[in-house]
This record gives sequence, C-alpha cells and structure tokens, in this order.
Amino acid sequence: MATTRSSKRQKNEPYELLYHAGIPGRGEHIRLAFEEAGVEYWDAAHNDNGASETYPLISDKYTGNAHSPPHLAPPILRHGDLTISQTPNILLYLGPRLGLVPDQSEDPEGIYYINQLTLTALDGFSNEAHDTHHPIASGEYYEDQKDEALRRAVDYRLNRIPKFLGYFERVLGSPTSQGGEYLYGGKLSYADLVLFQTLDGVSFAFPKCVKSARESGKYGKVWALYERVKGRAKIKEYLASDRRLKYSMGIYRHYPELDEE
Amino acid sequence: MATTRSSKRQKNEPYELLYHAGIPGRGEHIRLAFEEAGVEYWDAAHNDNGASETYPLISDKYTGNAHSPPHLAPPILRHGDLTISQTPNILLYLGPRLGLVPDQSEDPEGIYYINQLTLTALDGFSNEAHDTHHPIASGEYYEDQKDEALRRAVDYRLNRIPKFLGYFERVLGSPTSQGGEYLYGGKLSYADLVLFQTLDGVSFAFPKCVKSARESGKYGKVWALYERVKGRAKIKEYLASDRRLKYSMGIYRHYPELDEE
Repeated sequence: MATTRSSKRQKNEPYELLYHAGIPGRGEHIRLAFEEAGVEYWDAAHNDNGASETYPLISDKYTGNAHSPPHLAPPILRHGDLTISQTPNILLYLGPRLGLVPDQSEDPEGIYYINQLTLTALDGFSNEAHDTHHPIASGEYYEDQKDEALRRAVDYRLNRIPKFLGYFERVLGSPTSQGGEYLYGGKLSYADLVLFQTLDGVSFAFPKCVKSARESGKYGKVWALYERVKGRAKIKEYLASDRRLKYSMGIYRHYPELDEE
Repeated sequence: MATTRSSKRQKNEPYELLYHAGIPGRGEHIRLAFEEAGVEYWDAAHNDNGASETYPLISDKYTGNAHSPPHLAPPILRHGDLTISQTPNILLYLGPRLGLVPDQSEDPEGIYYINQLTLTALDGFSNEAHDTHHPIASGEYYEDQKDEALRRAVDYRLNRIPKFLGYFERVLGSPTSQGGEYLYGGKLSYADLVLFQTLDGVSFAFPKCVKSARESGKYGKVWALYERVKGRAKIKEYLASDRRLKYSMGIYRHYPELDEE
C-alpha cells in the first residue's frame, strides 16, 4: 500500500489547505510557509467548496481512507493522495519541499532543531493564548468562563509571555542562531514564520502587555526578528493582500479586560 | 558546523534522557520507546548526577552551545553532541533509530502519520489532563485553583475523554490501521506507546470515569490496544521493574474530587 501511494505522487500535484474560513488560526502557519516560498496552494478559506471539502474529514463518522487515518481537527494538508493533520506535522512535511529548513545533506539534524523551536512556539506560547479566553471548556462561550479567563490572563501576561519571550531571546543569542537574525543557522526557517505569527497574534490579543514588553528593551532580538520577517518581500505583499484573514473569534481574541493591568 | 557535528556522531554513543526524577511525566514516553526497543539508555531519574546534568540546560541563564539551542523544558535527549527537546521531537528522532516507525524505504510518508497520531495524543489528550488540575496557572498550587479545576475536570470527563477515545477508536477502525491491532500499518510504532502511556495516566487520574468508559463498550479497540501494549514482553518486564516510576505530582494526578460524577 505504502509504496504504491508514494510512487503515485506527482511533483506538480497541488497543495491544498483545509481549514476553517474566517479566522487565521493555526492554518495561518501553513499559509505563511506557502507565501514565503512563493508556492501556489488551494485554500479552503477562499473557495466556495472549502467547507464541504474540509468538514467531512473531521466528522466523528469519518473513518479515513486507504491513504489517511481520520483527523481530530484542521488544519489538514492534502497533497495528491497524502492527507495529514497537526500543524507542526504539516510544517515538517512542507519544510524540505518549500526550502524552509536547513539542507538535509549539509545539516541532517537541523530539522530536529527547527521542529523543537516550532513545537515550543505553537504548543506553548500560542496554545496558551487560546486558553486565556477558554480556560475551562473550549466548547463553551467565553462569557460563561470569564471569571476564570480574567485569572488565567493575569498569569499569561505576568509569567508566560515573559517566559516565552525570554526563551526566544536566548535562542537568538545562542551560537546555533549564528548571528541572531533568525532562530537557527543564520537563515530563515519555518520556525521563524511560526514565531512571527505567534507574536503577531499575541500582539493583537494583548496590545498593552506587548507594548510594555517591547518598551522594556529586554527582548530586542525577538522584536527585531518579528519586524525582519514582516518586512520580507513576499510576506509583506501577502500581509497587505486579501488573502490575509483578519483576527476575530479564533485563537487570538482581543478582550480589553484580559489585557488590563 | 553542522557537517562536523554529524560526522562526529558515533554509532555506539549512549542515549541520555534528561528529565525530572520522581515522576513519569513526559519523560515516560521516551523511556517506553527505549524499553520496547531493548536499547540501553542513561536515565537522569536513576542517577545521582541526574539533576546537575538536567537543570543547567533549562536555566534561564543558559544560552546553548555550538550544538544546541536552549531548551524551554525537559525531557531533553542527549545523543553524542546532539541535544534536543520537546517529547514528540525526541520521538521523531528516535523512531527510525529504534525501529518504531515504518521502514522509510517502504513507506516514506508513514512517519507523518505516526507524528500526527503522536501529536494528537500528547498535545491534546495528555496535556489537557494536566490542565484539569492546573487550569489557571501552572506555577501555582492546585489548592489555589481548585474551584476552576473542578469545573474544568467536568468538561474533560464529559467531553474531552470521549472525544479522544472516539477518535482513536476510529483510527483503529480505519484502513490505514490495517487490522486494528495497532494505530498504523498493522505494526507497533511509537504512537502506540504514546497512546498506551496516555491511557494509563488518564486511568490513574480518573479511575471512575475510565471504568465507565471501558464498560460502555464503545471503545473496545482502544482498550484492546492498551492491553496489547501492556502485555508486550519488554513492556511487561519494564512495568514490573524499579525503573517504572510511580505517578505522583506530575501530569497525571489523582484527586478523587475531580473524578466524581
């Protein structure tokens, strides 16, 4: 089965991103990779049949097919008959194909550092931003867990944001960053795109807190990286385009009361 | 730098697991991989110098070395001069080396399915178990967030446990499982070990809830996998040994009040 599957793959098969329309969410990390690489992709968020292509794959009746186990949640990447989910996993697959990881022949273990940094940004820094407005139950309304959210947001602002910013500042000062422009190896990787998007989302959700963190001067390398990625030609063009979705009711939400001192 | 690093690696360099002593925690997923593979490893939990080897690498003063960026948290794997963190990342590195993923030449994309299933178990099912007793702040005491914990545990028991069990039941019924004995490809992979350990931890933390889920008969394939992994010769020997640490104040904690109807 597996050999057949792989041998069927065509080089020019389109990349398809299956995700909710209307929020950047975790799908945004995949979009930024395609945009930076200048590679065409089909995006469910911008196509009329996006929902009908996406939701059957995460239905609790779906039992997968010969080329794919079921998926718990989107984003899902479809590439020919390969269908995979989990954001860091999709990036792991795309990284070498889009030139967003160190060259395998020169640095065979670079991918593990890129993956480590990506997991730290996504499953820590970014996921915990979601939990500030949904600390009790992801399926219930914010308004029904607001008291708990107010408490959790204090911890996120006072302890977690400084912890993650401090961590990435150290990464950018480490010998493996090779100069501090990017997280690893002196060259842009998808880990930088993930950190950029996480910082951008956290800045939207907690503008006061982030302003004060930036003004503290403690995390200069992190914010320089943020501006550096934002200013890259293809990213800049993308962020100004209609393809970039607005933040709304997704992972990153701006509730002013969660950002108060 | 990278080429030198890689070429220095010796085949017989020891695997070293750097993690907290006293709890199985996320380090347990790495231990189970070594134990199933029958491969020797040095374990910080069972050595006097374990803490002095581990904690400097996650100090907020540590800026990495030529072969390793800083780490946010353990577990950390050291293998020669490679030092990597993040549990799913360590497993990704070890999988091919320990024979716990599909053969790369026969199924080059199998690793992405194994990684997808691992991330779903670890960053969803398992992490959320931790959040039931620490829904507000991981740095504060349970007793100081007990009201919120009681509320969050209800959601975990009523919505999240059934969601994850249902998902993995479907995975075991999917064509890619190839028979339902293991999650992917008819053969044990590290994703099965991760699911086993997560189920074991959740069973410790929520015994009543799990008893009722098992008796419902809805997740027969999942619990059969749990027993199948538990009964594998090397795992069985390991679980009965002193090397298997007891659950205590880690990810999985048994607070009877969080398990009540």
